[in-house]
Amino acid sequence: MVKVSVMYPNTTGVQFDMAYYLDRHMPMVGKLLGGALKGMNVEEGLAGGAPGAPAPYVAMCHLLFDSVDEFQTAFGQHSPTILADIPNYTNSQPTVQISQVKL
Amino acid sequence: MVKVSVMYPNTTGVQFDMAYYLDRHMPMVGKLLGGALKGMNVEEGLAGGAPGAPAPYVAMCHLLFDSVDEFQTAFGQHSPTILADIPNYTNSQPTVQISQVKL
Repeated sequence: MVKVSVMYPNTTGVQFDMAYYLDRHMPMVGKLLGGALKGMNVEEGLAGGAPGAPAPYVAMCHLLFDSVDEFQTAFGQHSPTILADIPNYTNSQPTVQISQVKL
Repeated sequence: MVKVSVMYPNTTGVQFDMAYYLDRHMPMVGKLLGGALKGMNVEEGLAGGAPGAPAPYVAMCHLLFDSVDEFQTAFGQHSPTILADIPNYTNSQPTVQISQVKL
């Protein structure tokens, strides 16, 4: 299983509309990726690890796929639509990681 | 539900012993955190989002708790033991985020 993590850095001046993200963006992503998408999580940053430290990311999203190929095929077809929606909920540029799920 | 993400940056010269992490460190963490720990995931970084880009993190771990208080109580009791084991599998300093699970 492969996890694609989309992480929005908690930089100065960052804006993130969590309601839009949860109610509009993620359902659209789920619909477009269809059966290739095996799971989806969304988190809102609360804090960092050290006392009083800010969260490194204002929001994170994790998407599960059976393989990198499955992700690339599903996302590649719809990436213009998905990426064009980003400015509707944030002024942040997400950091993306593709990972192998080990546990 | 609260998720604690421990992310090991994929810096130059980073070393990470995934076998030790999976077979020794994480089982120890699970045992020490006990019933407060509601779920655990481990991922190994494969790639970044852009073609040919490296993974931002060599490894990530996500731990689920019912609340921040539950995490702090469980982790606080055992943090010296857990943190002292880090040099046994990596020379990386992890980035930690505490998040509210939204989806």
